[in-house]
Amino acid sequence: MNDEFYMQHALREAEKAYANGEVPVGAIVVIRDRIIARGHNQVEKLNDPTAHAEIIALTSAFNYLGAKYLPDATLYVTVEPCLMCTGAMYWSKLGRIVWGTDDEKNGHARITGANWPFHPKTIVEKGILADDCAALMKAFFRERR
Amino acid sequence: MNDEFYMQHALREAEKAYANGEVPVGAIVVIRDRIIARGHNQVEKLNDPTAHAEIIALTSAFNYLGAKYLPDATLYVTVEPCLMCTGAMYWSKLGRIVWGTDDEKNGHARITGANWPFHPKTIVEKGILADDCAALMKAFFRERR
Repeated sequence: MNDEFYMQHALREAEKAYANGEVPVGAIVVIRDRIIARGHNQVEKLNDPTAHAEIIALTSAFNYLGAKYLPDATLYVTVEPCLMCTGAMYWSKLGRIVWGTDDEKNGHARITGANWPFHPKTIVEKGILADDCAALMKAFFRERR
Repeated sequence: MNDEFYMQHALREAEKAYANGEVPVGAIVVIRDRIIARGHNQVEKLNDPTAHAEIIALTSAFNYLGAKYLPDATLYVTVEPCLMCTGAMYWSKLGRIVWGTDDEKNGHARITGANWPFHPKTIVEKGILADDCAALMKAFFRERR
């Protein structure tokens, strides 16, 4: 399966967040062509500003594998990770990270600038289904204005 | 009570981590001279590289208060927060953050540089009981060498 296929699954998670009135971000963790963990933003539901899609998917992956490092895994997330989630990905030693749309306001790059915040061995790609991922975010914030 | 008093309590949390074979970092959350949450590093115990002292203390504080922002709270942590914990503190909108010793390797400043990674209104102080906080870390890593 290709990156678009898995990003579609991450988008389905984001749609769950959207339906629950949460900022629509979704994430999945894939190892050897198998989705082993899913997460969508649950900040409002859990009353916890750290309950981001990526954190939920990563914690689920650690539990499922009984491992605290994920060098063979790819994490797909619909939106550029924030500073917190980027730090969590660093500690997870993820093999690969793929995100959809950039996030100028809350994405990590606004703070980390030219410094590499991920694990040295982690491969990062972006722009997969970026328009679909961005459209969901725009629709959410348009409704709330 | 002053910052040294509360940092002593954070140090006691760090000592619990040390006794459990965990990197010795401890954190507490204080509102109006009352400790409302505590946390110590549980990465090994929980098999979760994101189970840092600060994250555990913050999650406990959200649960205790039923609130997802902590503008009236001070978080004390024995060691400079990493990128992940710094991001979690940003989302928490903490009133004040006080840490003990800097962490050249894993502290956020190595990545964030001159950019301010906390909430604009958050006050940050450091160096409180820095020698005690650093001594515990040094003892831990000396044993493991």
